[in-house]
Formats: sequence, structure tokens, C-alpha cells
Amino acid sequence: MNQKDLLRPVADAALSAPLQDFNTADAVEYLNTLELTRAADTLAALPLPRAVKMLEQPELARSGELVAALPEARAAALLGLMADDRATDIVHELDEDERARLIPLLSADARRAIQQLLSYPAHTAGALMTTEFVSVPSTWTVGRTLQHIREVERTRETVYAIYVLDPHSQALQQVVTMRRLITGLPEESILEVAQVNAPVSVHPLLDQEEVARLIRRHDLLAIPVVDDAQHVLGIVTVDDVLDALIEESTEDAHKFGGMEALDKPYMQIGFFEMLRKRAGWLSVLFLGEMLTASAMQHYEEELARAVVLTLFIPLIMSSGGNSGSQATSLLIRSLALRELRLRDWWRVALRELPTGMTLGAILGVLAMIRIVSWQLLGLHDYGEHWQLLALTIGAALVGIVTFGSLSGSMLPFVLKRLGFDPASASAPFVATLVDVTGLVIYFSIAAMILSGTLL
Amino acid sequence: MNQKDLLRPVADAALSAPLQDFNTADAVEYLNTLELTRAADTLAALPLPRAVKMLEQPELARSGELVAALPEARAAALLGLMADDRATDIVHELDEDERARLIPLLSADARRAIQQLLSYPAHTAGALMTTEFVSVPSTWTVGRTLQHIREVERTRETVYAIYVLDPHSQALQQVVTMRRLITGLPEESILEVAQVNAPVSVHPLLDQEEVARLIRRHDLLAIPVVDDAQHVLGIVTVDDVLDALIEESTEDAHKFGGMEALDKPYMQIGFFEMLRKRAGWLSVLFLGEMLTASAMQHYEEELARAVVLTLFIPLIMSSGGNSGSQATSLLIRSLALRELRLRDWWRVALRELPTGMTLGAILGVLAMIRIVSWQLLGLHDYGEHWQLLALTIGAALVGIVTFGSLSGSMLPFVLKRLGFDPASASAPFVATLVDVTGLVIYFSIAAMILSGTLL
Repeated sequence: MNQKDLLRPVADAALSAPLQDFNTADAVEYLNTLELTRAADTLAALPLPRAVKMLEQPELARSGELVAALPEARAAALLGLMADDRATDIVHELDEDERARLIPLLSADARRAIQQLLSYPAHTAGALMTTEFVSVPSTWTVGRTLQHIREVERTRETVYAIYVLDPHSQALQQVVTMRRLITGLPEESILEVAQVNAPVSVHPLLDQEEVARLIRRHDLLAIPVVDDAQHVLGIVTVDDVLDALIEESTEDAHKFGGMEALDKPYMQIGFFEMLRKRAGWLSVLFLGEMLTASAMQHYEEELARAVVLTLFIPLIMSSGGNSGSQATSLLIRSLALRELRLRDWWRVALRELPTGMTLGAILGVLAMIRIVSWQLLGLHDYGEHWQLLALTIGAALVGIVTFGSLSGSMLPFVLKRLGFDPASASAPFVATLVDVTGLVIYFSIAAMILSGTLL
Repeated sequence: MNQKDLLRPVADAALSAPLQDFNTADAVEYLNTLELTRAADTLAALPLPRAVKMLEQPELARSGELVAALPEARAAALLGLMADDRATDIVHELDEDERARLIPLLSADARRAIQQLLSYPAHTAGALMTTEFVSVPSTWTVGRTLQHIREVERTRETVYAIYVLDPHSQALQQVVTMRRLITGLPEESILEVAQVNAPVSVHPLLDQEEVARLIRRHDLLAIPVVDDAQHVLGIVTVDDVLDALIEESTEDAHKFGGMEALDKPYMQIGFFEMLRKRAGWLSVLFLGEMLTASAMQHYEEELARAVVLTLFIPLIMSSGGNSGSQATSLLIRSLALRELRLRDWWRVALRELPTGMTLGAILGVLAMIRIVSWQLLGLHDYGEHWQLLALTIGAALVGIVTFGSLSGSMLPFVLKRLGFDPASASAPFVATLVDVTGLVIYFSIAAMILSGTLL
């Protein structure tokens, strides 16, 4: 098939008719609703530039499967014309066989770019970057640079940041924004319109969350990714960062909910994959929570003597878990946003101690009001020692909520210190941690206050 | 004080010396570490353009307090020179007195822009937008537009999207990107280089999360905010959206942790404000959880007869809460990302039912293994009916985990249907919901299996 054939739609144009009036985003949504072979046929029936645009949208579902279902030559043509970072994303989704089939059909340039991008681990600047940026030697003028941009514009992901390289070492020297470029005089040197500060750049292995933080911190539209010799390997653009941030938010939400993060939309994930992502943590938490049964067994005698104590176990334990969950969610975000560093743990502990004690006192008073009023109103009989019981529950709540707030706030620090992502501290994780200790606190306080009477 | 005086630093230059070598982001971080009056003095000692740049960073803490602490004339000069959306953010933080003092000192233009922006509710496109954009009549040529941009560039937040207005009605007609503009010929009409599709625009009252979704969906650098007559009121830029998204992520994380969202960094919030944000939800959850005490009271006789049943209450209840928390975090994100709509609730329910049953079965088997092995290894004596007890616990887990998954997944839909933010469904909220029902399920199953033996 020659180049001309490739540019002509290969299938029935009737298939692509419904897409005629849609903008790209709507067309992608329409394609997502179609059954796979029909979606692939529709994609094949579209003019090549349109199909490229649609494949470049991260919102397009099953993009790997779609490309694999296309005629080989067309699939290769599409991959070659796409932005190389998105083409790499799609190649990532192909299996070994499909890669071996398609990659040799690409042009040498596209093949090299994709293979380089494939080599970086997921969630790093390298995996997120595109190699399609504008760079010029520092000896050029504003006019020559503008002329160059006009020529290469179509093949660059962004032209709003221009990377000025040392003509000898090819190292990154300065960054010029398009704003500054168009206000410059054509005969001025490109360096004269460059920004004054040293350019902000990142290493290809930097985590994408860090990249997002830097782009945001310096209000950039793109950030250059450089190797140790300051050679520009690629750039990460703000829209890739936006996508990465949303993806991270989703992952963090899933993790905080106590499961492994899903990497696909809810309805697209298979039953067994869903099960695997949820059963793992659920079982780990369950095994941890089994310690509560052991703790309860330890106090079985006390429980038999004072059944009334069991009535408040769920109430007391959940309060510890809830206060812990609050503190953990607070600290996970503060650490992620760099509002706090690892060394600030003691300042947090010093805040959580009085906060937890006050919160515990509030709940303790609520619980005592409940016991006293139920008793006096005759709604339930808590036995002859009901005043002591109320005191026990109140005191236990102060202890457990304080403990919950403290351990919930310290957990993200501990995880970070151990080299884990603080976001792995989930609400269920904290609750499990607090439950076992909560029981011990409860029964110890009960033993102190009630021994000789109820116990 | 005349304009010239305002442009000269008003305080000792020595104060600003440490900032000389810092880029804006680092200078902001340094200022954040200073005590308030010292930070205000430092800000006052900086050259005006530098001070403006720093005030424009959302990372600058206490920006309202800083502006209030500056000499009045300088504060007004800074507000007047700042991007109007950021100036509005700062005015938002001032109290009535401070506003009354500063706003009359602003130029008529700045005053009008700020007062207009102040009138939009927080978290809407209107509150997020800037009025500093580039617009040209559709009768202009590419060359004239470029010349206009060169002249106004310094006072515009972005020049990369140019809004083309109908010369008569002033309504938004097209959007031209800078990319297309610089590749066009100077004598071409601006409409010839405009994009083909109708411009994507938003209403000023649209929620910022929706704005972010549209910017991301259409890969825009800015989105125009228009009124009903299609007049452009302002634009929302991608960096404002990035900031808004991070803010929303933090708020959602706090809410999912079971508290009111903090609007300041952890260490900057006062003790009583922190208490208020946490005590509210904690007390509501506590009152809800009190129903567990009522449920337990209802089963007090059974508990007295079979103390062994109480041993597993924490284990069983937490499993329901954990599976519910997983399902809720999954569905909150899917609804936020529009992967699912309200009408999809039954498809989700049909997925959660078998998923929950399988997860419950896994935990049930784990629990039965534990009971049987502890009994056979002589680690604990669960009484003569230990086989029936194991069966009860296993069956209860299937029931409770299924119920947890189902109700956890339906809760975000219910909240959305009732007009609440699905993100208000927190892990503790779900746990509380599941705990009470979980107890009823547990005791009902126990009554069925154990009546005549243990009960």
C-alpha cells in the first residue's frame, strides 16, 4: 500500500458519517459507546488526521485494542502520525505479538522516539514527556526562530515554550516563551528575549506528582526533561500534567478507600481483576482485625460478668476509627502538598494531642448524656452501677479518640519514613490499627473504674 | 504619594536582599517562613513588579493579611497592578473595614473588575476567571491582531488564545490560537486562521470541576466565560484550573476522611477552627453510631447467653465498613470523572452484588479457618457448638460484606440524586451506615443457625 492509499479512508464512509458534526471530544465519546469491531471500522473509515486526533485523546477507551484491530498498515500510519507520547501510551497497551507486528512498520524516527519513551518507568517525567518540542541554537535571532516555528509547528506538541541550546554542547541554555518572542524585534538575538532566571528542568526519572508541583509552582505551560549533561530529552506539557493529576487523585482516592487503585473506569474492569484489587487489602485488613477477636477472647471473663460493657464496643471502636481517619486524610494531603515535611512530625503530634483530647471529651459527654438520660427516662436499665458505667464510657472515649487522632496523624509520617507512599494509609487501615488498641484501652479503663463493682 | 514614589521601595532595601537571587517560587517560600510584620516589611521593600509577581502566587500564605499590613497606598498600587483574579482572591480574604479602606484607592477599571469578580460564588467559573484576555473584532487581519497583542501583552494573563468578537453585537464568534496566528499571513483575515468548530465556552456560574473537565476534554489553555448574549466576561486559564483541581482534591480527601474540608494548610489553621471542622461530623457520626448501642441492647439477652458471639462483633462490623469504604471511594471517583451517570446505578448494583458476595465468601472462609484451627490446636475453646459458630460467622460475613459493598456503592448515587455532592460520602459515614445493619444481620443469622443450641 503506498502513502496515498493510506491517506484515503479504507472502509465504508457511511460508518464515519455520524461523526461528521461532532468535535473531537464528542466523537471520542461516541466511539466509546460502540462495540469494538464497529469502533475500529469507524476509526478506519475516518480521514487520517481526524483519526489521529481521536487516538490522541486520553479519554478514548480501548485505544490499544482499537489500534490492534485496525489493518496493520493503517495502524502503523496512525501511530507514526500521532504525538509520540500518546503513541507510546498505546504501544504500552499492546501485547508482545502486536508490538512485534507494528513497530517494524514505523519510520525510523518514530520507532526510536517510541522505544526511548517506552524505556522509562510509568509515572515518571520520562514516561509522561513528548519529544516533539521546539529547540533552536542560541546563535539564532528572534526572526529566524519564528520562521522555524512556522515551518515545524504542525509536528510539535507545543510551540509556546522554545528551548535555546548551546550550539556546541547542545545543552539547555535558556527557555523563551512565545509571548516574549512575538514582542521581540526580528533582528534581536534569541537570548535577549529569554527569561532571566535559569530554566527549571526535571530529570526523566522524577515522579509525575513532583513534575506537576514544579509546573504549578512556576506557572509553566511545559517543563523540559534533561539528562545529566543538560541535553533536552523531551518536555512535559501542562495538559499531560492535568491528566496525570486526575489519574493520581483517582488512585489516591481508591487507596484511601482501602483497595488497590484501578487503572480503568469502573465499568470497563473485568470481574476477576476487580476482585483481585479489592480482595487483597480486604483480606490483609481482615487478618489484622482478627486481633480484635484475640483481644476480646482475652477479656472473655469480664465480658461474661458485665455484658453491659459489650453494648458500647461498636460505638467506642468506631469513634477511634473515625477520628483516626480524619487525622490521616488531613496529613496525607499536607504531606503530598509539601505543606509539611517529615521532620515536622512532632509539631503535628503536639497539635493532635490537645485536639484529640478535646474531641474525645465532646464525644464522651455525648455518650454520658445518652446513658444518664436513657437510665433516668427508663428507656433502658444499665444496672445498679450505671453512673460508673457512664464514667467508664466517657473516659474510654477520651482515651480512644486521642489515641485515634495521634496514630492517624503519625501513620502517614511513618509510612513516608519507611519509604512508602503516605497515601497508602487508608481509612480502613487506620481503623484496624485503632480498633485493637481501642479495645485494650476500653477494658483497661473499665477494669480501673469498675473493679469491685461490676468487674 | 505620587506614582513615582509608589514605584520606589518604601522600606529598607536590606530586608529584600536575601530575595535577590531567588526565583519567584523560592522567594514566596522564604516569605512564608517569616513572621507577619517582617514578611510585610520585606514585601514593601521589594520593587513593585517583583512584589506583584509574588502576590500573584497562590502558594503565598497569608496574602490577605500581608496586603492589610502594608502601607495603604502601596497595598492599593499592588492590587491595581496584579492580575485581577488574584487581586480578587486577596480582597476576598480582607475584612469589611480593610476592603472599605483599600478599594476606593484603586483605579476605576481595577475597582470595576474586582467588584464584578467578587460577585460570583466561590468555586464557579466566574470566581475563577480573569478579565485580562485578548479580544479583537472579526474584521481585523492577522497582522493587526499580532500588532495589538504586542502592545497589550504585558497586561494580559494569556495571549495564547485570542477571542474574536462580532463587531456589532460584541458576541463571541471564534477563538484563534497563537499557534494558528503566527502561521497565518499578515494580510489574512483573522477568521481565516480561526478554528473550524464552534468555540467551547462556559457560563459564569458553572462549577469549577466542570470547567476543569471541559478544559481537559478539549485540551485548551483557556476557556472563555460568556453570558447569555455570548459576551465574553472573562477567561479561565489552565493554571487556574490546575490550582482549583488540587484544591478540590484536598477538599475531597478531607471530606472522605469524615470531616469538613480545611481551607488552609494544616499548621496555619487555628485550634478552635480545626476543632469545629472535625467535631461536627465526628459528633453526627457518633450519634448515628449510637444506634449500634440500641441494637446491642435489643440483643442483650442473646449476648448474655452466648458471650462467644461478642468476640467476633468488631471483626464482622469492620469488614462491612471496609468493603463499603472500598465501594464508595470507587463510585465517588467514577461519578466525578463522569464515567458513570446517575441512571447507571442499577448496572453498578448488578456488579456489586456478585463482587460483594465473592469478597464476603473469601473473608468468611478465612474466619472459619481461624475458628476451626484455633479450636483444633487448642488455642481457644469456642464451646461445644464451635462448628455451628464457625458457620454463623462465615455466613454473617457473606451477608455483611455484600450489604457493605452494595450500600457503599449506592450511597454516592443517593447523595447525587438528593442534590448533594457525592464526595460527601465519607469512609466513616459508610462504616456507620453499615455497622448498625451489620449487627442486625449478624444476630439474625446467629438466631437462625444457633437457636436451640447456643441461643
